[in-house]
Amino acid sequence: MKLAMIGLGRMGAGIARRLMQHGHEIVGYDRDAKAVETLAGDGAIAAASLEDVVAKLDGPRIFWVMLPAGGPTESTIETLSGLVAADDIIIDGGNSFYKDDIRRAKGLAEKGIHYVDVGTSGGVWGLERGFCMMIGGDADTVTLLDPIFDALAPGIGTISKTPGRDDADPRPEKGYIHAGPAGAGHFVKMVHNGIEYGLMAAYAEGFDVLKGKASEKLAEDERFDINLPDVAEVWRRGSVISSWLLDLGAIGLAKDHKLDQFTGHVADSGEGQWTIDAAMEEAVPAYVLSAALFARYRSRVEHTFGDKLLSAMRFGFGGHVEMPQ
Amino acid sequence: MKLAMIGLGRMGAGIARRLMQHGHEIVGYDRDAKAVETLAGDGAIAAASLEDVVAKLDGPRIFWVMLPAGGPTESTIETLSGLVAADDIIIDGGNSFYKDDIRRAKGLAEKGIHYVDVGTSGGVWGLERGFCMMIGGDADTVTLLDPIFDALAPGIGTISKTPGRDDADPRPEKGYIHAGPAGAGHFVKMVHNGIEYGLMAAYAEGFDVLKGKASEKLAEDERFDINLPDVAEVWRRGSVISSWLLDLGAIGLAKDHKLDQFTGHVADSGEGQWTIDAAMEEAVPAYVLSAALFARYRSRVEHTFGDKLLSAMRFGFGGHVEMPQ
Amino acid sequence: MKLAMIGLGRMGAGIARRLMQHGHEIVGYDRDAKAVETLAGDGAIAAASLEDVVAKLDGPRIFWVMLPAGGPTESTIETLSGLVAADDIIIDGGNSFYKDDIRRAKGLAEKGIHYVDVGTSGGVWGLERGFCMMIGGDADTVTLLDPIFDALAPGIGTISKTPGRDDADPRPEKGYIHAGPAGAGHFVKMVHNGIEYGLMAAYAEGFDVLKGKASEKLAEDERFDINLPDVAEVWRRGSVISSWLLDLGAIGLAKDHKLDQFTGHVADSGEGQWTIDAAMEEAVPAYVLSAALFARYRSRVEHTFGDKLLSAMRFGFGGHVEMPQ
Amino acid sequence: MKLAMIGLGRMGAGIARRLMQHGHEIVGYDRDAKAVETLAGDGAIAAASLEDVVAKLDGPRIFWVMLPAGGPTESTIETLSGLVAADDIIIDGGNSFYKDDIRRAKGLAEKGIHYVDVGTSGGVWGLERGFCMMIGGDADTVTLLDPIFDALAPGIGTISKTPGRDDADPRPEKGYIHAGPAGAGHFVKMVHNGIEYGLMAAYAEGFDVLKGKASEKLAEDERFDINLPDVAEVWRRGSVISSWLLDLGAIGLAKDHKLDQFTGHVADSGEGQWTIDAAMEEAVPAYVLSAALFARYRSRVEHTFGDKLLSAMRFGFGGHVEMPQ
Repeated sequence: MKLAMIGLGRMGAGIARRLMQHGHEIVGYDRDAKAVETLAGDGAIAAASLEDVVAKLDGPRIFWVMLPAGGPTESTIETLSGLVAADDIIIDGGNSFYKDDIRRAKGLAEKGIHYVDVGTSGGVWGLERGFCMMIGGDADTVTLLDPIFDALAPGIGTISKTPGRDDADPRPEKGYIHAGPAGAGHFVKMVHNGIEYGLMAAYAEGFDVLKGKASEKLAEDERFDINLPDVAEVWRRGSVISSWLLDLGAIGLAKDHKLDQFTGHVADSGEGQWTIDAAMEEAVPAYVLSAALFARYRSRVEHTFGDKLLSAMRFGFGGHVEMPQ
Repeated sequence: MKLAMIGLGRMGAGIARRLMQHGHEIVGYDRDAKAVETLAGDGAIAAASLEDVVAKLDGPRIFWVMLPAGGPTESTIETLSGLVAADDIIIDGGNSFYKDDIRRAKGLAEKGIHYVDVGTSGGVWGLERGFCMMIGGDADTVTLLDPIFDALAPGIGTISKTPGRDDADPRPEKGYIHAGPAGAGHFVKMVHNGIEYGLMAAYAEGFDVLKGKASEKLAEDERFDINLPDVAEVWRRGSVISSWLLDLGAIGLAKDHKLDQFTGHVADSGEGQWTIDAAMEEAVPAYVLSAALFARYRSRVEHTFGDKLLSAMRFGFGGHVEMPQ
Repeated sequence: MKLAMIGLGRMGAGIARRLMQHGHEIVGYDRDAKAVETLAGDGAIAAASLEDVVAKLDGPRIFWVMLPAGGPTESTIETLSGLVAADDIIIDGGNSFYKDDIRRAKGLAEKGIHYVDVGTSGGVWGLERGFCMMIGGDADTVTLLDPIFDALAPGIGTISKTPGRDDADPRPEKGYIHAGPAGAGHFVKMVHNGIEYGLMAAYAEGFDVLKGKASEKLAEDERFDINLPDVAEVWRRGSVISSWLLDLGAIGLAKDHKLDQFTGHVADSGEGQWTIDAAMEEAVPAYVLSAALFARYRSRVEHTFGDKLLSAMRFGFGGHVEMPQ
Repeated sequence: MKLAMIGLGRMGAGIARRLMQHGHEIVGYDRDAKAVETLAGDGAIAAASLEDVVAKLDGPRIFWVMLPAGGPTESTIETLSGLVAADDIIIDGGNSFYKDDIRRAKGLAEKGIHYVDVGTSGGVWGLERGFCMMIGGDADTVTLLDPIFDALAPGIGTISKTPGRDDADPRPEKGYIHAGPAGAGHFVKMVHNGIEYGLMAAYAEGFDVLKGKASEKLAEDERFDINLPDVAEVWRRGSVISSWLLDLGAIGLAKDHKLDQFTGHVADSGEGQWTIDAAMEEAVPAYVLSAALFARYRSRVEHTFGDKLLSAMRFGFGGHVEMPQ
């Protein structure tokens, strides 16, 4: 198929390349002309503007927008919506908030334009391993785009087959799902990231407990000085908690068992927060996922004001009395 | 009644004085001779050693041990147990772990000695307001000691009567309960402190949210610059969340609305941890009480190793990619 | 002063009555004519419609809207905004979301109408004790309304004075604050309710631990059968965790120590959720407040799907093996 | 090597068989004579009693005890300790509490007996995949036993190599580590299980949020009806959150997407609780791991008493007022 890739950062360029390797034709565009030039060197058709992109595609045109969520994605889709024609397809492959997808899809549907949201997991590793994709949009459009998703997905590969799926949709086994109408793709991706925060926090706390066992807070004969890189490595090998995130942790620990290159400040993107929002809208308890998010907030401040308020109350008991309070 | 007060720190001396004010006779002992001297100046009988304490009481002798939990309490009670006679009574008024009470009571019972544990709340304010006491021990001994508890408790005072208690034990309304056999007093006091941590954390988080509303993380037109001392004050006045802890917070905030004198490091004594232990033994969920405890742990370290592990995993995705992961 | 009370439910009628007792003049309106009639019997001027309300006030007119948040409040204020004139004042005394206040205040300001939001705590007890109020709006309007707030607030009363407030705004000591521009009142009230959930959950968990100590999960000699109504009562008396919420808990426990009249399903209103939303917008950790909210969600379902998924995973280990997993 | 396997349940028999397949000689014993007979049929030397086990080994004798933690393990090791001689080796391969290991190792060391604790992960799948082992004990003994661990471990296999481990201990890559002195093996295994609970809870909460998106709590146009077995499957395929636990969840969901065969009651073994205990001893925050444990407790009761107390307090506000509280 022929489609445009708008946004040629690491992810966009990677997706474009993987598609070209599978025989698809790419019209590439980015604000940064050098990124366009580089991709053209690999066989893409270079476009100089969104208008140029439109001109270089045939109807129904397919646009894959791969830009940071929020402003850049929003304004690009708005501009595109003034340039395209009925039956054209706009794909948002970024990390948009699913409610933005629903809104955009409604607006574009009035003009006969199809909107598809694709949540993508796999990071830069996806270029090699293939991308795991969660897709929202109307069924006909998602079916029409199937060759694209099929090319991007990891495929069946060597991962063991789940028993009992013989009559099930074959797409999930290849690495992509049609999750539902517009927004559903990013919704599933959002929850995916919410879970990711929870998984990471579970490992983080566990390694803290292992490391703390060597702490001087404990009596000397209660301490163990455990080799953390070795533990991460062994848990990858036949243990119940083996996972790809643990693989990444093991790589980091093998490189520097003290992890001194990291400050301890941990960023979060929107999905963790949106997952808690969704949980609250549904009245679903999310103790673990919220705690994982809060730990990232907490990591970025030295002290909270609340901590000081605790001390102020304690002081009020009577000057830090050490006896019964 | 005549009883010994062993340990004349702030709490022990205060209890002794309140008892003397109510007509009881005190034999005072402390390792620090000056503390004994000072209390003797207020009317107490000075004792120079535990042996001297024993000699200056008549059977059945009553010993109120008011020392730091752990070593000092343990060794003092052990020494005493070698000096006393059947029917004597040893009271542990400190913050002992309730399982230590159960063990000690069993050992002393074999010699005919009665053991009573008293969990005391009220801090240094208790001298003026009276002490809230949670008492464990056999019923006869607790009844025999009633004049002591009655003198120490706040009494009915001006606190509103709870309807429906006309046929109930009158002691709780005066400020003390017989919670059950030895250990039950400190058990109830332990849970009291566990709750205290939870209450304090709820206020702390709430004030953090109020303060954060002025944060530069928010767009300028989304900020409120809220006067926190005024909020603490107004909540004391007819609101559903008025409490004595809030009174203490209001005092601290009125003195310094930035609470700059506090580092943000918050200590914890054993009760918070023991409460979680008890919850786990009973298979009772304690999300809030545990989170309150963990926030104190977290307040005392700059960064956790786990935070760095999170960053290491994130790095593993592909060098902090900002696009879909 | 003369003002209209729109919405004569329990809270609206109570506020109207307290204002009339303090010499203010009330024009009362409610969809339910009987409620209007009843209040008129107590001295209010009855109004038959919003138009009638407007006609019976003199400029600048003051409207206190006391209706359920959301639809009823929104539509009433919208209707009112078409009937009123520049310099008139609309007060929302309900539980509105603070972002709705900000939006409404902006819209009304374009017509020269002043909008004031009042978060009110105290429940039906407020009629007797006075209401604790958190107020948002422009300073001139809030000052103009001062006689109203002064009449509704509890006043200085017998609550102890916080030291260090001699030069501070006197209003908080009387029971109301001007928290900031429109929305700030409901924002502070929202956090107040968020804290309330946290405080309640701390008590709930603590009492669960006390009750669990009698559980058959424990060996017989590790159990205590603790009298919970007595514990609630004694903690009201000089303990560090005394509070008005504990008073309410003690009342409930005294009436029925098994609390059998309650199903265990606990509702939540919007404020708990909004507090977590605000925390996330500010990147403030809210472990305790969120856990308190989630416990209410959890109380309303028999089992979560997630619990079953845990069992499915455990089954996958190998048929519930009881040995190492 | 020649060693005894004491306890021939699913795990013990599996370990014995894997060892025999690798050329080791097994003396098998179990209280259940049939289990012994069955294993003898596969080539093991049958023993009729612990005394018989001892008689059928040559010094230094090696005993692998594979029994439920607590009573059975404790009493068996105690009996063995009276039968064995200096330089003999006792291995506890079950799920013992690491502090029990430390105590036993000390006691046995006085008699010159070596004690080794082996935490084993992999469940019944381990027979096929090999067992992941975390080993505590003195270095010489662990080295002497290396042929046994090497046979049981999965070996390097097809799992990708972690870069940077060229100079590191080769054992973790094969699937076992020497974690430290006696107790360290079970300590690492304990934390492993604590993490396992956290990981599982993260998936559980995430799937609850996905499922809740179809809930009638939401307006009809805000719902997505997401195919959960397909989501579990697609996340196994190139996503960041792929893991062995997710594989198990996908198997369960593929079999029954409603998971109706499970009641929703989720058991927990000791390790989750011990991990929180260890965290508290070290003053390490464990928000996620504790919440995961508490969710299991909560899953096993219909309502908590605390939930009812919340309702009692709410009732106290004034009969479930729906207006401001």
